[in-house]
Amino acid sequence: MTVTKGYAAQSKTSPVTPFEFERREPGTTDVQIEILFCGVCHSDLHQVRDEWGGSIYPMVPGHEIVGRVAAVGSGVTKFAVGDLAGVGCMVDSCRECESCGLGLEQYCDQNQIVFTYNSRFPDGTPSYGGYSKSIVVDEAFTLKISPKLDLAATAPLLCAGITTYSPMKHWNVQPGQKVGVIGLGGLGHMALKFAHAFGAHVTQFTTSPGKEDDARRLGADEVVLTRDPEALKALAGTFHFIIDTVSAPHDLNTYLNLLKRDGSMVLVGLPEDPAKVEAFPLAGKRRSLAGSNIGGIAETQEMLDFCAEHGIVSDIEMTPISQVNEAYERMLKNDVKYRFVIDMATL
Amino acid sequence: MTVTKGYAAQSKTSPVTPFEFERREPGTTDVQIEILFCGVCHSDLHQVRDEWGGSIYPMVPGHEIVGRVAAVGSGVTKFAVGDLAGVGCMVDSCRECESCGLGLEQYCDQNQIVFTYNSRFPDGTPSYGGYSKSIVVDEAFTLKISPKLDLAATAPLLCAGITTYSPMKHWNVQPGQKVGVIGLGGLGHMALKFAHAFGAHVTQFTTSPGKEDDARRLGADEVVLTRDPEALKALAGTFHFIIDTVSAPHDLNTYLNLLKRDGSMVLVGLPEDPAKVEAFPLAGKRRSLAGSNIGGIAETQEMLDFCAEHGIVSDIEMTPISQVNEAYERMLKNDVKYRFVIDMATL
Repeated sequence: MTVTKGYAAQSKTSPVTPFEFERREPGTTDVQIEILFCGVCHSDLHQVRDEWGGSIYPMVPGHEIVGRVAAVGSGVTKFAVGDLAGVGCMVDSCRECESCGLGLEQYCDQNQIVFTYNSRFPDGTPSYGGYSKSIVVDEAFTLKISPKLDLAATAPLLCAGITTYSPMKHWNVQPGQKVGVIGLGGLGHMALKFAHAFGAHVTQFTTSPGKEDDARRLGADEVVLTRDPEALKALAGTFHFIIDTVSAPHDLNTYLNLLKRDGSMVLVGLPEDPAKVEAFPLAGKRRSLAGSNIGGIAETQEMLDFCAEHGIVSDIEMTPISQVNEAYERMLKNDVKYRFVIDMATL
Repeated sequence: MTVTKGYAAQSKTSPVTPFEFERREPGTTDVQIEILFCGVCHSDLHQVRDEWGGSIYPMVPGHEIVGRVAAVGSGVTKFAVGDLAGVGCMVDSCRECESCGLGLEQYCDQNQIVFTYNSRFPDGTPSYGGYSKSIVVDEAFTLKISPKLDLAATAPLLCAGITTYSPMKHWNVQPGQKVGVIGLGGLGHMALKFAHAFGAHVTQFTTSPGKEDDARRLGADEVVLTRDPEALKALAGTFHFIIDTVSAPHDLNTYLNLLKRDGSMVLVGLPEDPAKVEAFPLAGKRRSLAGSNIGGIAETQEMLDFCAEHGIVSDIEMTPISQVNEAYERMLKNDVKYRFVIDMATL
């Protein structure tokens, strides 16, 4: 075992503070990664504060990890020492079920996903995430990172990126289609970039008039203020696909009505409270309300390769790890454009 | 114009009582049908009582119509006097939009559907439905009825039949798939018959222990009592497709959790109140909650032909038209197996 420095929450009411813990030695198929950057995801805060229940403490958060390979097991074939590498939300799954076989580990039928933190390995040991100096991950769950991309700004692709890329691919967003993006935060700004890169006609829905210029810069062709009911009414029945990145309570029926026949609206924002959904907007145009959860490992690699090819990264603000609790507070107020990334050199 | 006898509601608080009104003479492409049977749909009652708003009075309800052609316009090519014919929920649409062009008139992009009753033709005249002696309908919205089928029991196929057939075809129900049917009434019993005919492994969800034998007779392989939370829990993640025919308030999340990854649950029951939908069951397995509204004209013909081939009709109870208000009261108590059909000879 190797002692590793990191930051952890000791309870649901504690701040995230310095913490030392042990990582396993790299096994045959493991990659040991020296972490350079780790993104700060809203789900870090949800889990630190036990807002989804079942949190495991001490908790070392972080699942948007980019670093450099420091050691590899004898059976590792895809990585060599010195390579860039990334880790997202998962570090293992059953690898045997139908979903895992299809590269959809995030939907593992055996519910045996080991998440990068706040989860347990089959032997019961807890998983610790990326707010730390290093991590050991099976190469099957390790991603290749192109040196073409800004490394710090690449980190958020591992969660915010794949979470928005995957549903657009699954629901087959095509050039010329009208795509709506609800919310402009960590997820929303990535959704804009991908929808634009896929050639869609992209509309940003936002409550904030001040975000219009930024939305256009990030890929929006149109910006609609959602507090203007007339503007929304005029768009009824015109969207092929809407991605909803907002986790605060909001009315879904308004947006369902904007979908064309057979259009889909996909939730990636995971509100805690149930939404009130009317049957008429769904049945009236055979619309669907769906949800999507991150993406599989192969698709995450595909997304990273797509980003390298198209020069897509996250818009980030760097933070030293000592300021991560302040970063949480600012994230809660949407006071970040658009993702905090921890510079692990500050640890 | 021809004076026609029928039954109508004069206001949202009136019973349905005898009423005489005028039908247009058959135009070039019109078919005049002497109505033999008309099914009693729950939506008749919703609209008679103005529960969806905007009802037009006097209202002659009825959109599950089977009869015999009494006259045809000079341009009619598909029907001859003496043929059997059927009319469902629609008698016209814009016929020019993308949806109409695809045979999806029920989703007409111009919102120019003329429903069979409680609707208006482009010239402003109201449409009157099947609780009457005859009806005049453009042949493009008239269905061919096979003489192989029991005519009275065929009438409910025009709404209850197509409403359950269409989503199973659209969501591609396949042999061996697990299909769930929520509710066992007019729609539910047709859903059982179709799912069984498509070769699915069919599970009936019901609150009524007394319905088990009937559900099996109608096509269910399994019957699950929804008041048994343990029985439901054991089925989590196992269904490809669930069709929800219940319009009374009920918890949708319970059933969403029963879907496999990428499974869909489709509402055809149209509850008046919004349902509370949680994001986690959707995102956790990329599930969809959708709605579906009747079916297009070509698909309705396909369904009728499928029924003729497979000997599928509705289970019905015949009622004289003078008893239709009593039929409504019994329908409200689910005291009918499974659809009332008015014998128009009693008018």
